[in-house]
Amino acid sequence: METSLFEKLRIVLVETSHPGNIGAAARAMKTMGLSRLSLVNPGQFPCAEATARASGADDILANAHICQSLQEALADCSLVIGTSARQRRIPWPLLEPDECAHRAVEHVGEVALVFGREHSGLNNDELAMCQLLVTINTEDSFSSLNLAAAVQVLSYEYRKAVVREQGLKSSPRAGHKDKQIPAATLEQMEALYTQMEQAMIELDFYDPDNPRKLMLRLRRLFNRAGLDNNEMQIMRGIFSAVRASINK
Amino acid sequence: METSLFEKLRIVLVETSHPGNIGAAARAMKTMGLSRLSLVNPGQFPCAEATARASGADDILANAHICQSLQEALADCSLVIGTSARQRRIPWPLLEPDECAHRAVEHVGEVALVFGREHSGLNNDELAMCQLLVTINTEDSFSSLNLAAAVQVLSYEYRKAVVREQGLKSSPRAGHKDKQIPAATLEQMEALYTQMEQAMIELDFYDPDNPRKLMLRLRRLFNRAGLDNNEMQIMRGIFSAVRASINK
Repeated sequence: METSLFEKLRIVLVETSHPGNIGAAARAMKTMGLSRLSLVNPGQFPCAEATARASGADDILANAHICQSLQEALADCSLVIGTSARQRRIPWPLLEPDECAHRAVEHVGEVALVFGREHSGLNNDELAMCQLLVTINTEDSFSSLNLAAAVQVLSYEYRKAVVREQGLKSSPRAGHKDKQIPAATLEQMEALYTQMEQAMIELDFYDPDNPRKLMLRLRRLFNRAGLDNNEMQIMRGIFSAVRASINK
Repeated sequence: METSLFEKLRIVLVETSHPGNIGAAARAMKTMGLSRLSLVNPGQFPCAEATARASGADDILANAHICQSLQEALADCSLVIGTSARQRRIPWPLLEPDECAHRAVEHVGEVALVFGREHSGLNNDELAMCQLLVTINTEDSFSSLNLAAAVQVLSYEYRKAVVREQGLKSSPRAGHKDKQIPAATLEQMEALYTQMEQAMIELDFYDPDNPRKLMLRLRRLFNRAGLDNNEMQIMRGIFSAVRASINK
């Protein structure tokens, strides 16, 4: 996977009180392929709790850029996106996470995604440094998203946007089809249906008023599933054994 | 916001070791409007650490359903979605979180989203109870997503899908689901699999070296198809007739 799209985005945490949240944020970033972390006046850092919660993302903590001010953390950025738990009195351009991720990926230049304090978020001076604001839609009565959880969701959306941009298949979508096993052909499926139908007749398992309906329903079921060659063989084997058992 | 779409989804955590993760998962759920939590043999619960990390989502912990087995947790569900960190040797239908959320929202009936143990995920028996698997795309070299972070991402996608669905509901396209036949529940499907397995044994249709493999493949096929109540009754009828024919 191309690295530059992951490298141009930095996560900036402003005055984080709990070192555990810094560690958990680093872990969240690393799972999504992000590596650049800036900490503006962290409450406690470095700290054993941060390392513990990073759970292996120690390199991100070790390389974190510690800054005295948000301005310093953003100096070389050309797109600054602030995170906000709610809409502010003074309205800013407010994005959904997926749109925010798209804008960040499309942007030519360094991008920062800025997260405020656990309890009070970003102050007005800090918000004024942001070109865009992003908000994660939450339940009105319980909007207290954990800081690392917010980093996780936005990093996740960023990764999705990168994958889309790069046109890379994120994971084998058609996971139910093993590459080595070809799908059953129509001819094979018709042979299976014939065999099933004969078994139904021999079992007396048929609606005499509407004999076609049962087979139509079975066809619909198996066509919907889309059998591969192995599965077709298994089903043929079962109905062959059924018929052999009846006729012996 | 309509509550039923939020209420039909339960989050099921299987043998969670760390009570902090249970609390953080409850918090993640509540921010996204979810409330139904089932815990299968939790390591420690209730627990002060869970309550602390829930950070106000105490009601979800208090109402959590404690179960002795995954089967008990899923008995009345008709769509079971398992979470998996990686692709399995026997491939199952594998969804992205957004597609998974869409499927869950569209489903008529109770839906469970199942999360495995922190270190080992879901075992093969548990995976075999799932109709669909969802995976969160992560960096290959660091795929260790925290359990509560995974709950957060999937709950977030579910909320997005609900909001989108409710946006569509106001359009005249809504209401197409009224005529749908309800999906078979997990309990009904397990009864069907038991009956199939007994028929296989009575037919001598089994690989003695690997007796479990056949049933796994049949489960995969039928879980992928997603049987409705009529289809489940037809399949039960067929295998009931097969057994009656053998034993007469």
